[in-house]
Amino acid sequence: MTRFRLTIEFDGQPFMGWQRQAHGPSVQQTIETAVQAITGEEASLHAAGRTDAGVHALAMAAHVDIAKPITAFRFADALNAKLRPDPVAIIAAEQVAEDWHARFSCLGRRYIYIIVNRRAPLALEAGRAWRVPVPLDAQAMDGAAQLLVGRHDFTTFRSAHCQADSPMRTLDRLSVRRTGDRIEIEAAARSFLHHQVRSMVGCLQLVGRGKWSVADLQEALEARDRTALGFNAPPDGLYFAEARYAEEAPKPKRR
Amino acid sequence: MTRFRLTIEFDGQPFMGWQRQAHGPSVQQTIETAVQAITGEEASLHAAGRTDAGVHALAMAAHVDIAKPITAFRFADALNAKLRPDPVAIIAAEQVAEDWHARFSCLGRRYIYIIVNRRAPLALEAGRAWRVPVPLDAQAMDGAAQLLVGRHDFTTFRSAHCQADSPMRTLDRLSVRRTGDRIEIEAAARSFLHHQVRSMVGCLQLVGRGKWSVADLQEALEARDRTALGFNAPPDGLYFAEARYAEEAPKPKRR
Repeated sequence: MTRFRLTIEFDGQPFMGWQRQAHGPSVQQTIETAVQAITGEEASLHAAGRTDAGVHALAMAAHVDIAKPITAFRFADALNAKLRPDPVAIIAAEQVAEDWHARFSCLGRRYIYIIVNRRAPLALEAGRAWRVPVPLDAQAMDGAAQLLVGRHDFTTFRSAHCQADSPMRTLDRLSVRRTGDRIEIEAAARSFLHHQVRSMVGCLQLVGRGKWSVADLQEALEARDRTALGFNAPPDGLYFAEARYAEEAPKPKRR
Repeated sequence: MTRFRLTIEFDGQPFMGWQRQAHGPSVQQTIETAVQAITGEEASLHAAGRTDAGVHALAMAAHVDIAKPITAFRFADALNAKLRPDPVAIIAAEQVAEDWHARFSCLGRRYIYIIVNRRAPLALEAGRAWRVPVPLDAQAMDGAAQLLVGRHDFTTFRSAHCQADSPMRTLDRLSVRRTGDRIEIEAAARSFLHHQVRSMVGCLQLVGRGKWSVADLQEALEARDRTALGFNAPPDGLYFAEARYAEEAPKPKRR
């Protein structure tokens, strides 16, 4: 068996989420079906993150074990040919050690959340960003975000369906930056709870529109109670941006 | 009659182009139909640029004359409600002087062209960027681009269907910048010939992959002959980005 690491871009709109589901299409099943068409093998895909319905990926990391002899280059090309016309693309493939695991070897995850802060509907980014029609103060949002950084009990920001053993997480970075009517929120941590990024973004949005003070956000965090959550942001604006692993030496930038 | 200036964002994929066509949907017709539904008036829309099928707009400028009394704010909201679910959004509307003309008052147009330079198909930007699978030297492209800047006879870079009286145009800016696997080309001029941006991008791409030298590009320009064109880039990557007018005082950036 050869273990391949895959880097995957996808548009989450037509999918019920990453994970295989009985009741609808998933990114995992879409790729596993393509793998089977190429290799004849019923291989399971393991990913660094299990994104929800409607959440996108710029670079999801996953691995799969294949018996059929094939190079990483040809495997990626064959997968991309089979995946068409689904909005899923294998943007990189490489052979990795048998003990490399997309989920368990992952040292850090990074998400990006896009808000378009304008009254007009989205023509170019419908389903791909969260439109907030009332003016948001991105500086206030960035300031408030800093109190979530660090090690905390994130029970308030965790879905009732979250399967993690502990609600404790260490948030390494949470930044909010505005460019024109576009607000980009970046969140980095070793791992996240289910709905954590969307829940944090939803509450920061309340701060941005002046409905919540920094003290309100602090209170919600300290409540350690899901019912203290102000708002859960929609999946549309969320992108899984990066999975980080130990063995990666810094690569020179291409040009 | 009140003249309204509209700023319009659209995804060009479902349209035959900006201009009303007998054989398929156009952005112009889509908006004119919405105007009629709101006002009962058969008003004509005039735009700063007439984009081709599949070309997008971040901020197309247009104007329309309306007899029905309505504020710009309510007009924009009503148009956006009627335009749904078409990927067309009125991102700004304002009342302008009766002699203000979206096309004839326009002092400068700016286009952006997006190339994604990678082997993998596009999942997130299918139809919205040009994927070039072979490595492109963006620095070489930017260098070559500079010989097109200035006043030239652009016959080589002009569609056979171009209706302009003269092939002479003054190109104010043509820049090529790479960020990761993304190459952004920006073109600014008072006005452009039909297919001029796509034709320039197509030839710069030949320079980027090493098939054309700077001398080849110079030769093509000097040939003043459409058959000397190396390549016409697809519409997918092209965005009408800005129309500039004299009466616009520089606005302070929002936050």
